[in-house]
Amino acid sequence: MIGKLVVIGVGLIGGSLACALRKAGAVGEVVGVGRGRENLELAVRLGVVDRYALDATAEVGDADVVVVGTTLGATRGVLERIAPALGPDTVVTDVGSTKASVVAAARAALGAHFPRFVAGHPIAGTEHSGAGAAFAELFVDHRVILTPVAETDGRALARVRALWETAGARVCDMAVEDHDRVLAATSHLPHMLAFTLVDMLACADDADDIFAFAAGGFRDFTRIASSNPEMWRDIALANDTALLELCQSFSARLARLADAIRAGDGAALELSFRRAKEARDRCLIPEANARRQ
Amino acid sequence: MIGKLVVIGVGLIGGSLACALRKAGAVGEVVGVGRGRENLELAVRLGVVDRYALDATAEVGDADVVVVGTTLGATRGVLERIAPALGPDTVVTDVGSTKASVVAAARAALGAHFPRFVAGHPIAGTEHSGAGAAFAELFVDHRVILTPVAETDGRALARVRALWETAGARVCDMAVEDHDRVLAATSHLPHMLAFTLVDMLACADDADDIFAFAAGGFRDFTRIASSNPEMWRDIALANDTALLELCQSFSARLARLADAIRAGDGAALELSFRRAKEARDRCLIPEANARRQ
Repeated sequence: MIGKLVVIGVGLIGGSLACALRKAGAVGEVVGVGRGRENLELAVRLGVVDRYALDATAEVGDADVVVVGTTLGATRGVLERIAPALGPDTVVTDVGSTKASVVAAARAALGAHFPRFVAGHPIAGTEHSGAGAAFAELFVDHRVILTPVAETDGRALARVRALWETAGARVCDMAVEDHDRVLAATSHLPHMLAFTLVDMLACADDADDIFAFAAGGFRDFTRIASSNPEMWRDIALANDTALLELCQSFSARLARLADAIRAGDGAALELSFRRAKEARDRCLIPEANARRQ
Repeated sequence: MIGKLVVIGVGLIGGSLACALRKAGAVGEVVGVGRGRENLELAVRLGVVDRYALDATAEVGDADVVVVGTTLGATRGVLERIAPALGPDTVVTDVGSTKASVVAAARAALGAHFPRFVAGHPIAGTEHSGAGAAFAELFVDHRVILTPVAETDGRALARVRALWETAGARVCDMAVEDHDRVLAATSHLPHMLAFTLVDMLACADDADDIFAFAAGGFRDFTRIASSNPEMWRDIALANDTALLELCQSFSARLARLADAIRAGDGAALELSFRRAKEARDRCLIPEANARRQ
């Protein structure tokens, strides 16, 4: 049971976590904090939070848990602002898509309070955003990755884990670097490829023709290119090391594929396509796994 | 009205066209031809075709229309086999995903009969294959691209157009090279990128970890990597010119994106991501256009 929860950035993720904890009766009071009064008023109206405040510093002193649900680019500034006002036992966590940058920012910003910071990343989302998109079931059966470091306080970690489990998530711990590498592969690189392809086609002379003849495969493949540009700018910059390494591996493989096409090497093409199909069919059975991930 | 229709290769596409024409009462008799007796027996049982034959040459002499629904790699061999047996007015068409290679094969294989060959490509499909996957509504509101050339007989073209319109499709003509370029952009390159990504991750040491943390975005992005490897080998080889050119443009753009990440150039990243998002949101409104494409 959490007495007071402060959610800074009441968007899809922070808002849904608040909804889930309120619905489970696991929290006494939820205070939403943000810069947009309209979104915060909506959050109160929809019952996502109990009340809201525009200034986090006045709210975090007696909070049991503070969830930073802002964009990656804003996280460091938020942590710096709240650091002097945090109560001695207040646990701070975040929901950002990259972890090395967040952990570094927290270490720098929180100082002596850093052991009570637990970096986290729920693998869940929809294409919608804002408090209006929040719903209590968003995390049910989804994974949440926590990336504690050597200094992280065991009780703080347990508290954050319990909070996500209450929301229905399957929580696991991972090293910071492993998280960033795995997410670069499954999420950040695919987004870069989709953005790059659609941008390339949009800039073509016959862009209208091209899009007019796009079929279902193109629609699925490029869905993630409709994601929020600022958010993905921040992610690309925050996870630059892992992402650049994967971009390079990918480019080398694409060059090898082009070589095979140029050489008319059907066997090499078929081998690569078959390996991909088998891996995907084996690892991503839509019906069985979709709800769990 | 078609008296006798011969469908060589009773798969998803050829079978669905047969179903649609039978359902519309637009065809007297449909004969399915193929190498797999089991699939052909299924096609008869399901009412996709009236009867079947293992040898096309005995069937095409009195056929009004022959639809070649085999894979791209098999098309030339099929055309060579049926060429001597075609009736003088028999119209031949195909459904392959690339057109320059098919038109060249038809010109070489059909000789004097080439004017009665109309190259076609329905932009429709599902992830399933075989006669069991065929259904009459597959082409409703989907586009079919025909790529007539200078020699193409006007009546043959009109006949093939009418056939697809009867199946509910929106038919348009396109130059062979334009077709292959547009399809390379909207379909062939995306497939290469998806196959390359999944194959790369499948070959990684921590492949299991990576797939275990894949979320919905990855699932959508890689859906086309579950496509048929032989079919895509054939397409990549058949459309090599357009595809290699696009692979090169894509690689150059991805390198520029990597440069921007390396330089911490958030403005360049955001600009590219925003252009992509706006193009996709503008051109591919799922609700409005999905059924039409």
